[in-house]
Amino acid sequence: MKAMVYYGAGDIRFAEKPKPQIIDPADAVVKIVKTTICGTDLGIWKGKNPEVEAGRILGHEGIGIVEEVGSAVKNIQKGDKVIISCVSKCCSCDNCKVQLYSHCRNGGWILGYMIDGTQAEYVRTPYADSSLIPLPDNVNEEVALLLSDALPTAHEIGVQYGDVKPGDTVFIAGAGPVGMSALLTAQLYSPSVLIVCDMDENRLKLAKELGATHTINPASGDVAAQVLEIVGEDGVDVAIEAVGIPATWDMCQDIVKPGGNVAVVGVHGTPVDFKLEKLWIKNLTITTGLVNTNTTEMLMKAVSTSSADYTKMLTHRFKFSELEKAYDVFKHAAENGAMKVVLEAE
Amino acid sequence: MKAMVYYGAGDIRFAEKPKPQIIDPADAVVKIVKTTICGTDLGIWKGKNPEVEAGRILGHEGIGIVEEVGSAVKNIQKGDKVIISCVSKCCSCDNCKVQLYSHCRNGGWILGYMIDGTQAEYVRTPYADSSLIPLPDNVNEEVALLLSDALPTAHEIGVQYGDVKPGDTVFIAGAGPVGMSALLTAQLYSPSVLIVCDMDENRLKLAKELGATHTINPASGDVAAQVLEIVGEDGVDVAIEAVGIPATWDMCQDIVKPGGNVAVVGVHGTPVDFKLEKLWIKNLTITTGLVNTNTTEMLMKAVSTSSADYTKMLTHRFKFSELEKAYDVFKHAAENGAMKVVLEAE
Amino acid sequence: MKAMVYYGAGDIRFAEKPKPQIIDPADAVVKIVKTTICGTDLGIWKGKNPEVEAGRILGHEGIGIVEEVGSAVKNIQKGDKVIISCVSKCCSCDNCKVQLYSHCRNGGWILGYMIDGTQAEYVRTPYADSSLIPLPDNVNEEVALLLSDALPTAHEIGVQYGDVKPGDTVFIAGAGPVGMSALLTAQLYSPSVLIVCDMDENRLKLAKELGATHTINPASGDVAAQVLEIVGEDGVDVAIEAVGIPATWDMCQDIVKPGGNVAVVGVHGTPVDFKLEKLWIKNLTITTGLVNTNTTEMLMKAVSTSSADYTKMLTHRFKFSELEKAYDVFKHAAENGAMKVVLEAE
Amino acid sequence: MKAMVYYGAGDIRFAEKPKPQIIDPADAVVKIVKTTICGTDLGIWKGKNPEVEAGRILGHEGIGIVEEVGSAVKNIQKGDKVIISCVSKCCSCDNCKVQLYSHCRNGGWILGYMIDGTQAEYVRTPYADSSLIPLPDNVNEEVALLLSDALPTAHEIGVQYGDVKPGDTVFIAGAGPVGMSALLTAQLYSPSVLIVCDMDENRLKLAKELGATHTINPASGDVAAQVLEIVGEDGVDVAIEAVGIPATWDMCQDIVKPGGNVAVVGVHGTPVDFKLEKLWIKNLTITTGLVNTNTTEMLMKAVSTSSADYTKMLTHRFKFSELEKAYDVFKHAAENGAMKVVLEAE
Repeated sequence: MKAMVYYGAGDIRFAEKPKPQIIDPADAVVKIVKTTICGTDLGIWKGKNPEVEAGRILGHEGIGIVEEVGSAVKNIQKGDKVIISCVSKCCSCDNCKVQLYSHCRNGGWILGYMIDGTQAEYVRTPYADSSLIPLPDNVNEEVALLLSDALPTAHEIGVQYGDVKPGDTVFIAGAGPVGMSALLTAQLYSPSVLIVCDMDENRLKLAKELGATHTINPASGDVAAQVLEIVGEDGVDVAIEAVGIPATWDMCQDIVKPGGNVAVVGVHGTPVDFKLEKLWIKNLTITTGLVNTNTTEMLMKAVSTSSADYTKMLTHRFKFSELEKAYDVFKHAAENGAMKVVLEAE
Repeated sequence: MKAMVYYGAGDIRFAEKPKPQIIDPADAVVKIVKTTICGTDLGIWKGKNPEVEAGRILGHEGIGIVEEVGSAVKNIQKGDKVIISCVSKCCSCDNCKVQLYSHCRNGGWILGYMIDGTQAEYVRTPYADSSLIPLPDNVNEEVALLLSDALPTAHEIGVQYGDVKPGDTVFIAGAGPVGMSALLTAQLYSPSVLIVCDMDENRLKLAKELGATHTINPASGDVAAQVLEIVGEDGVDVAIEAVGIPATWDMCQDIVKPGGNVAVVGVHGTPVDFKLEKLWIKNLTITTGLVNTNTTEMLMKAVSTSSADYTKMLTHRFKFSELEKAYDVFKHAAENGAMKVVLEAE
Repeated sequence: MKAMVYYGAGDIRFAEKPKPQIIDPADAVVKIVKTTICGTDLGIWKGKNPEVEAGRILGHEGIGIVEEVGSAVKNIQKGDKVIISCVSKCCSCDNCKVQLYSHCRNGGWILGYMIDGTQAEYVRTPYADSSLIPLPDNVNEEVALLLSDALPTAHEIGVQYGDVKPGDTVFIAGAGPVGMSALLTAQLYSPSVLIVCDMDENRLKLAKELGATHTINPASGDVAAQVLEIVGEDGVDVAIEAVGIPATWDMCQDIVKPGGNVAVVGVHGTPVDFKLEKLWIKNLTITTGLVNTNTTEMLMKAVSTSSADYTKMLTHRFKFSELEKAYDVFKHAAENGAMKVVLEAE
Repeated sequence: MKAMVYYGAGDIRFAEKPKPQIIDPADAVVKIVKTTICGTDLGIWKGKNPEVEAGRILGHEGIGIVEEVGSAVKNIQKGDKVIISCVSKCCSCDNCKVQLYSHCRNGGWILGYMIDGTQAEYVRTPYADSSLIPLPDNVNEEVALLLSDALPTAHEIGVQYGDVKPGDTVFIAGAGPVGMSALLTAQLYSPSVLIVCDMDENRLKLAKELGATHTINPASGDVAAQVLEIVGEDGVDVAIEAVGIPATWDMCQDIVKPGGNVAVVGVHGTPVDFKLEKLWIKNLTITTGLVNTNTTEMLMKAVSTSSADYTKMLTHRFKFSELEKAYDVFKHAAENGAMKVVLEAE
């Protein structure tokens, strides 16, 4: 079969690989119907994850049709249409028992990283019963593709950890796929103010279409001052950091009100400066984390209630055989006005 | 001044009363701008509350302009436009200290019940700092009127106690002002199914306009069977009882799923049968209660996010001098298609 | 092997049965080291559960040594000493995904009920990875036996659902194994008053030894009056119903304070009268349920912190071959001063 | 009357001051029975708070007898024995309405800072109804003194924000009055491991007497390594930072497990380094804050359940006229083996 394979830093190729087989009784093999590319995939390509072995098939997002299940699989059957969750969960280790599936001792984020992933015609998925989510026919397949990773990540680590409540004022640093997904899923809790900050005017325009009440481009001047101008000098109830750099962390810690929340969703590569000399007194809650994907089903049911059009997140569509072209577009997301790209099986 | 006065069971009259004065340093006197009538007022009129003294001015809802404040009042000033909360709260008794304001030792629901109320040109409000909520100019005055009682009651005792979450299936028994307010405020948390049950087709029609996904008239057959047909045999995540009779309690206990919630908002006059022989095993949470009005400000900020038109709740408008006429309309709500009536100062 | 077998109402016998085998890849077979008898077993014997098939081995509690594991089992190995949880959980059905393991679609309470149980030399346990809990050598084996069912049931459905907090006043109706376990596990949260009510003076005496601050025998007069005498006229913060009859439900609903909790742990056979005409206004939370066993590990770690001697719960010890004698003692618990009986493998 | 007065950095004196009067209708004047000295008082003396006016009476802790109340005070009467809460709360500003009393717009921590404090024969206390807590005769007066500030600070900002649960492993950095209070109040929730770290061997010895399961002196080697040796390589469930310097923050961020909590209680004077490059993935909750004193009553009821002797926190006792001597002892706490000092009215 064909798949997108990592051979080393800067070297990924659309190559021929053997079709995966069931290895463990809890496995399933899924025929991919739609897949997509994540910023993390670009990170692997750039060499940020030298722990990835050469020959690894990339990708941890996708929807597909179950082709085969292992002897221990009970809730999933051949022929089921499913969402492939980016997190594999054994459900029986100590972390899984407290629903911290992101830190599953036997799984976690392994697809397209420690084991072969979803940018392929077929993928083997461990712990199929808990890691594949049956997809009803009435859910849009492209929105379902966002349910593999982007939407639950933003919802759980941004919106839920950030404790967004009706009437809240919310600041989101970054309008990439995760920031935009935070914008979408925050609206499930009816905040009154939703400020999105990004340097890309196209993304800010899309943020407005998807429900932002205000947008800020850092190029226009001091971000903190602009936020406080909108919400008052105390700051926002919730600040969601969705970029992963010190500058956006700083925005968040500078504008959160006493009793407020800072939810860090971004993947950070360096330490940041934490202004405890000002913040020790502010009764803040600051959170970090990797997605547990324990709200995927909740989101699948809830997205239908939104007045925002989630499909606007999907800016480009390709045939599966055009995967290298799709990577080129996604690598230069700003120039191409790309948010999420869809790869469709042929 | 003029006011609606209770003289005994079945005897309420629009009468002349002295203008109220500050009695306690924490008091304010408010000039009423808009007021309304609650089902509880009808209950007093019918004689259900013999503890009410003859001569009592009715009403516990309203918005107005602060006329005078006592010497201990700090956050409210003469001239402020305010929402009058139906619950007066001292904030320092044991119940207030745990935000159980409904059971305030020095206040609670006393307006139009133990002390003179809001169906008057002026009203004295105890604990003005905590019991009056400043009303910004950009909030619709008629929606603000709903924030005195109906919306926070439905939100706190129905939606919050019922723990409505994104994607949930919700059943609401009763489409009167409180049931309809539950329908409106439940949407702040994005449930996927909202079933409203009532015997009045006009109310069901309005429920549809205000966001119900399904409506059921008990005249059409077994309610439980119809609900399970919609949501599946396990039942709903949340059942909100907003009538106050055994029949609606029974609907709720019959259709709630394992792990679900029954939130009783209705004012009950008789015991009910609790089927513990079936329900002991179902991991249910059943709640009751009087409003604490601790989400009034939250709601004031959040209602602006709703796509539903809250003003449709206000079906009839009268001049203040027409209070007796307004009562006549509200007493026969079904024939008149009445939900909430607005009385406006002249 | 030998096992305690149900042949029909009133007919249980210590009989010869074939040793269980692995059926499903997620199974384990465990050699029983210690087991015990639950009130539910007596219920089956009495014929309360006609759905139980003749030939069924009874028992859902026990500790043992893993003899064999299926091919899909990852976290448990042959030779492990384990607690057998009374609830089997697939971890992948919709109920398991929200930690409502008691209502697992593929498991739940099935041991000694729908499948053969633990009152045997060997038992097959489905979903071994999630349903067997490794037992460290430093945990007392008899206390571990209480962790199969009694302690987590009382803790989750009584103490946690009842929301016992430091300083709270707590009433427990019933000093049987579950009521007594509620008494023990409530102390993990430091309530200031712990009142236990039972008709058996021996049990009240033991309750005092295990941490009750007050005990009440209904024979001594009106229970509600005595409780209010102790805690004040508002009533208790938390009432835990651990018997399963209308009389104890009534005690609980009569003595809970505004804003308080009633946690129903008892197995009820008839409907009860719910005084909504008095309680609708009291902002109560009433819960029911079957144990999820999601706090077994938490309790295993926490019991070591208690100053109470949990082993006093185990009043009688027998060899496994004396199972019929142990049943006789337990059937007449009051005369024999029995709480939990231990059966030890020979 | 006599009082301890701040005249500028390094200059505090026991001086004659006029007896305070009621200024606002919500005020009370309290005759001090017992008071104590806080580390914050030493900070003011050292000049860390140049915003404090010369002539200010110090102190924000104490118990006393109410001498006089303003006309708006309802729940407190002349003659009541009371705990003076370190936080004054209006209960009606936006922050108070969400129980964020530490950030009360009209109060907060003002005693002995913005207004005259408790190290005096008499003190004026604003918002007496909510800021004075009636003290029953059966509560030890010295323990009650700890309820003004030390115990609620440690409990709310350390133990509650840190979410200590039964069976948890807890690390406390610092065994001063707040760290030691965290050790005491953490036990209300039955953690299984309580590790206390301090450089003072006397304090570590006291920590052992008050319930620590392990103590660590940084002089003995790498703290993180020692903690992981005790609890396993994943780290602790909860780390409580109770010193206020980068070194103790670092200990905490280095040893908290995935899904764990870091509760910062220390008063920090400089920024710290936050290792987001390692911690972004760990699903942590990090909190900061000033005490809200909303658990003072809860603690007053709960301390009686503890097997630890809270009075061991009070190491030195002086007559009120010896206040300067008491300051000398407290300034050199290590040499004097001082934890909290008691000043008693004569």
